[in-house]
Amino acid sequence: MSIEKKIVLCGFGNVGRAFARLLDAKQDDLAARYDLRLRLEAVADIGGGAVADGAGLPPGRLTDFVETGGAVEGFAHYGRPGLKTADLLAAPGADILVETTPTNLKDAEPARTHFMAAIDNGVDIVAANKGPLVLDYRQILDRAREKGVQIRFSAATAAALPTLDVGRLCTAGARIEAIEGILNGTTNYILTRMAQEGCRYQEALGDAQALGIAETDPTLDVEGLDTRNKIVVIANALLDLTLDPGAVDTTGITGVTPADMAAARKEGRTIKLIGSARRTPDGPVIRVAPEALPADHPLAGVHLSEKGISYDTDTMGRITVTGGHSSPTGAAAAMLKDIIHMVKFRI
Amino acid sequence: MSIEKKIVLCGFGNVGRAFARLLDAKQDDLAARYDLRLRLEAVADIGGGAVADGAGLPPGRLTDFVETGGAVEGFAHYGRPGLKTADLLAAPGADILVETTPTNLKDAEPARTHFMAAIDNGVDIVAANKGPLVLDYRQILDRAREKGVQIRFSAATAAALPTLDVGRLCTAGARIEAIEGILNGTTNYILTRMAQEGCRYQEALGDAQALGIAETDPTLDVEGLDTRNKIVVIANALLDLTLDPGAVDTTGITGVTPADMAAARKEGRTIKLIGSARRTPDGPVIRVAPEALPADHPLAGVHLSEKGISYDTDTMGRITVTGGHSSPTGAAAAMLKDIIHMVKFRI
Repeated sequence: MSIEKKIVLCGFGNVGRAFARLLDAKQDDLAARYDLRLRLEAVADIGGGAVADGAGLPPGRLTDFVETGGAVEGFAHYGRPGLKTADLLAAPGADILVETTPTNLKDAEPARTHFMAAIDNGVDIVAANKGPLVLDYRQILDRAREKGVQIRFSAATAAALPTLDVGRLCTAGARIEAIEGILNGTTNYILTRMAQEGCRYQEALGDAQALGIAETDPTLDVEGLDTRNKIVVIANALLDLTLDPGAVDTTGITGVTPADMAAARKEGRTIKLIGSARRTPDGPVIRVAPEALPADHPLAGVHLSEKGISYDTDTMGRITVTGGHSSPTGAAAAMLKDIIHMVKFRI
Repeated sequence: MSIEKKIVLCGFGNVGRAFARLLDAKQDDLAARYDLRLRLEAVADIGGGAVADGAGLPPGRLTDFVETGGAVEGFAHYGRPGLKTADLLAAPGADILVETTPTNLKDAEPARTHFMAAIDNGVDIVAANKGPLVLDYRQILDRAREKGVQIRFSAATAAALPTLDVGRLCTAGARIEAIEGILNGTTNYILTRMAQEGCRYQEALGDAQALGIAETDPTLDVEGLDTRNKIVVIANALLDLTLDPGAVDTTGITGVTPADMAAARKEGRTIKLIGSARRTPDGPVIRVAPEALPADHPLAGVHLSEKGISYDTDTMGRITVTGGHSSPTGAAAAMLKDIIHMVKFRI
């Protein structure tokens, strides 16, 4: 049975535009494989205004327009100056909010307001933005459940690496005892370079910055905060917890020295920044820290900007998944997958 | 909403008994996490007869009874001498056939008859037996679709390693361009020992046999036939093909020499038995052969009896999953997962 869903896209930066491009490129494929039609009904860009059309926007042309310098609200025939995101979500017929505004870890705005407006209007949510999930996970999930609204957030938990799918679907019926993840590509790149070349942290960071892999202010990555945010959301979702991110014991990689690397190598080990969550008799233990993994650890071979996550279970043993593009296209593909799961598989 | 499903279990060998044990052990957990009740309504054992009870059998006690030497049909109060599997599947109320009889790759019997009886009676199928899937994939899937019957076969395609889940669910919306898998633990064990110790094939095989990892007649494994059967089912399912297994170019590991291993190592490579399926401009190419993987290949670190599969996609990049118990419990856990997917997630 053919299904059509109307999409409101919030945020039109790299990830939002990659999602629009994907809607354009995958249109025929989605119809053929999943009998699914996704109509882009509105786009709201932070600072760029909004466009909306009940009959559907042309995602490819809109993206071209913005990538050649236009503001969303200037898009011919479709721009709606003054229109607010809240209005878009309250519009009759909006089915899915795709949230790609920049993550804000102070108060989660504006995504938090978008989430709440969507929930109150019965609009399902697919998010790349992790702010509201890190800061208000339980409140948001409970409120969504109350209103019968679905929320998916693969793209917020390591983009195209299927962290949550493996922990919830591939291991259904098994009990997850422990989770270990290399969840941040920037820090894994830096540690890999240090391990391979024996260079110092500052040198590897400089190279990563020159390559665009690390940001000018790399704090969020190198202090382990991005890894912490992801393991918090993953552990909340899979171990049914309500973690306070500020209370998670978090050590980044700025203190890792060439001597540490050499000592690890001497023991056949390799240092990786690991976000982990374990059940223990005293309750769950969540932490982020550089760990010296033995050579036969399934994450020991995850190098450079690659990521990976490993689940230890009671009946299936250990299952590890690695890879998946970290690019805007990878994040967009993860959101498209979430929509297919929600609409067609009813997962 | 609480759901109850009545199960007919065919085959009560290692995998069938592990499944019964799991039903017993996971009963409360399934109710709590998935609001799901699985009732074991009947068990048919090849050569051991059948037991059935409309009110449900006690899976733990039945397994104890058989493991201490009893025949299924001798189980007090429940045995039903002379009862045939076909009768069990035609019984009103049977919901799911769990097929764990030994795989037969000549004519797929008796599993083929069980599959057909289940389909004709509207009973969904969860299979560990790969015979009917390897020999008659399209015919069975088409007939099931016609009758509205669901078929799941995770356990037939590498047990607890979630080969099909990753290729169908985690990558939904992406296009799979290529699949590469280490799908047989026995051959991977032998190749790993040869690589690590420089020993000959015969020596490593002997060790594997002594450890119970290889069978007395190891033909199916070492000639690549088990790998071929799995990649055929996986490629049929994920690339929508109808492959003739006999036509797949298949080379096993019996010809791999210490000299080959040394030459590979010299180039930083490691030899693995790879089952692969690729889309090419001239159509799909499926093959099984030892391949010298570079050190940074995501399957290069899959050692000993471990397995793994790697998917190359258009929008998500490459995603690789490794691990998962190969034991009877791992296969049973994969079947339990299939049931949860089918019943609760409606995947």
